[in-house]
Amino acid sequence: MRQIERARRAAEIAEVDALLISPGADLRYLIGYDALLLERLTCLVIPAAVDPFLVVPELELPAAHASLGPVRVEIVAWADTVDPYELIRHRLPGNVGRILVDNHMWAEKVLALQAALPRAHFGPANTILGDLRMRKTAQEIASLRAAGAAIDRVHAEINQWLSPGRTERQVARDIADAMLQSGHARADFVIVGSGPNSASPHHEASDRMIGPGEPVVVDISGTMPDGYRSDSTRTYSIGAPPAEFLAYYEVLLAAQSAQVATAQPGITAGELDAVGRDIITAAGYGPNFLHRTGHGIGLDVHEDPYIVAGSPRILATGMAFSIEPGIYFPGRHGARIEDIVICTDDGVETLNNTPRQLRVL
Amino acid sequence: MRQIERARRAAEIAEVDALLISPGADLRYLIGYDALLLERLTCLVIPAAVDPFLVVPELELPAAHASLGPVRVEIVAWADTVDPYELIRHRLPGNVGRILVDNHMWAEKVLALQAALPRAHFGPANTILGDLRMRKTAQEIASLRAAGAAIDRVHAEINQWLSPGRTERQVARDIADAMLQSGHARADFVIVGSGPNSASPHHEASDRMIGPGEPVVVDISGTMPDGYRSDSTRTYSIGAPPAEFLAYYEVLLAAQSAQVATAQPGITAGELDAVGRDIITAAGYGPNFLHRTGHGIGLDVHEDPYIVAGSPRILATGMAFSIEPGIYFPGRHGARIEDIVICTDDGVETLNNTPRQLRVL
Repeated sequence: MRQIERARRAAEIAEVDALLISPGADLRYLIGYDALLLERLTCLVIPAAVDPFLVVPELELPAAHASLGPVRVEIVAWADTVDPYELIRHRLPGNVGRILVDNHMWAEKVLALQAALPRAHFGPANTILGDLRMRKTAQEIASLRAAGAAIDRVHAEINQWLSPGRTERQVARDIADAMLQSGHARADFVIVGSGPNSASPHHEASDRMIGPGEPVVVDISGTMPDGYRSDSTRTYSIGAPPAEFLAYYEVLLAAQSAQVATAQPGITAGELDAVGRDIITAAGYGPNFLHRTGHGIGLDVHEDPYIVAGSPRILATGMAFSIEPGIYFPGRHGARIEDIVICTDDGVETLNNTPRQLRVL
Repeated sequence: MRQIERARRAAEIAEVDALLISPGADLRYLIGYDALLLERLTCLVIPAAVDPFLVVPELELPAAHASLGPVRVEIVAWADTVDPYELIRHRLPGNVGRILVDNHMWAEKVLALQAALPRAHFGPANTILGDLRMRKTAQEIASLRAAGAAIDRVHAEINQWLSPGRTERQVARDIADAMLQSGHARADFVIVGSGPNSASPHHEASDRMIGPGEPVVVDISGTMPDGYRSDSTRTYSIGAPPAEFLAYYEVLLAAQSAQVATAQPGITAGELDAVGRDIITAAGYGPNFLHRTGHGIGLDVHEDPYIVAGSPRILATGMAFSIEPGIYFPGRHGARIEDIVICTDDGVETLNNTPRQLRVL
């Protein structure tokens, strides 16, 4: 069954009258259209009662036709003189009550839809699409495997770019180039956190010069031509790091390895988080592991399932997510190890396979 | 006056009770914070009645502190166990009635805020911030000038990459690299439309091989390290193009030149659009100019003012926007010429200055 038909059936079961999907991962998942995110409204409308249709600005008509390929969805083009929200209202049944919009739809579109359909109740579409997108098909798994191999090729050659005396930004630029060379269509983020910056989980890259004896967290993520994402973190050290760093790195490695070994269908995301957190806490670093264990990945780099403390989400075959515990000492240094894994019937397949031991450059 | 204080006064005049701003250009404009756009809520709250505050996930605290610099805004960090929407509700006055959210806030955040504040009326913040952001300061103009010079350096060397026998995607990759080398922090889009693809205004780049005698539209846009955007289009030809193409290219060039010469404070955006459209229509190509003349630019690549037919928006000193008419023959070929200009007191300053005549490579 095609994704769009699955979504429609799921919406029907949930008594949703229409799904409204603007450009982004949901749209690409449903009909393969990698549309530009612009001020003019592009919106896939999946009503429960009538056939789905794609509203596109006239300007985007050639791109929409080219991108849709074999998917047959009626395309409704609108000229700049037309109100596309009125167009949608007009084509939906008059009694439409419950509407779900894609989670990343821009506020200006949400508010305009709410104004055009004042009696409808609006909710986020991940309540329907999250469940669908979470369980990857064989084709999606192949795509994520290719993305994992591509980002691994970059980590494998990191010593070409990461050296003392260079700035984080210089290193990040070379890594971004290498990501394109390795098969990515786009480098989405390149975190190069050296010295104290390695202790800030979402630091990106600065003009700070990397010094000897410093840990460097390299967390890199890109988009492949088919839209699927890579994401892998390794922590490197430029020469011998401080002893205290080595001590907790071993704990981190043990925690991450235990989580990869434990992950399997049937356990909850919260249990998987605890496997690593318990090891880190037992070693006295509990307060230094200040984020969740991981996030789902697919056409978005962060999507369901989130591997977070207390989550009752039960892991199942076909789910793809990161396992990325970290230990951070603000102002000093930190470390993180991240792999993407796919749940198989009895464990996980690891999509990132460069060495996890501390690599001293 | 600082931007955040300007915004607050404007909100007060408009009888808005609070502005809620998530990561994006508005946030960067108001407090300089280049925050990541993530599922966890980061939100600048500017209430009319009390001091502004910035809600950030605990994980982002170091990045927020580092990025904020001298701007003094109270930071309220929230842990994964806290509901940040409740946190905002709790800190806002109980009678908050009218709330504006940034135009690009994700639907999931808008819907969660609406659920937390069910009695408030929500609208888009560009009604306040659009007017502020449209009139560039001297510093913003300097930033846009630097962005224009950076993208011009790429167009000036296009013959290094654009040649027959290469695919659009190969050329686009080299251009993206060159954009980074020329000073951009990020290449946002690289349109390389050859042959029939030059007739699709928002085509990006495909595996199509570029052939002799083909027009190629190269429309490229990136983000500088300070967040300001470049955007410039030139149309090239690989060897001698068809005669019919040469005929309409001259019309296009005349239209674009006339628009640049006419743009000045006091005329409307609609009038400026008409200057080019009339020339193109008089030459018989009216139906082939199927988009507006241009868009504002700054921290977003598309922002107010839009230069669109019939717009009553009066141009004013300090406004920055593109002038980019195009002529397209679907299935055959097309051309577009785009410059960013800044309204001065008596005309415009053109920020893109590579030759506009057809360059035959």
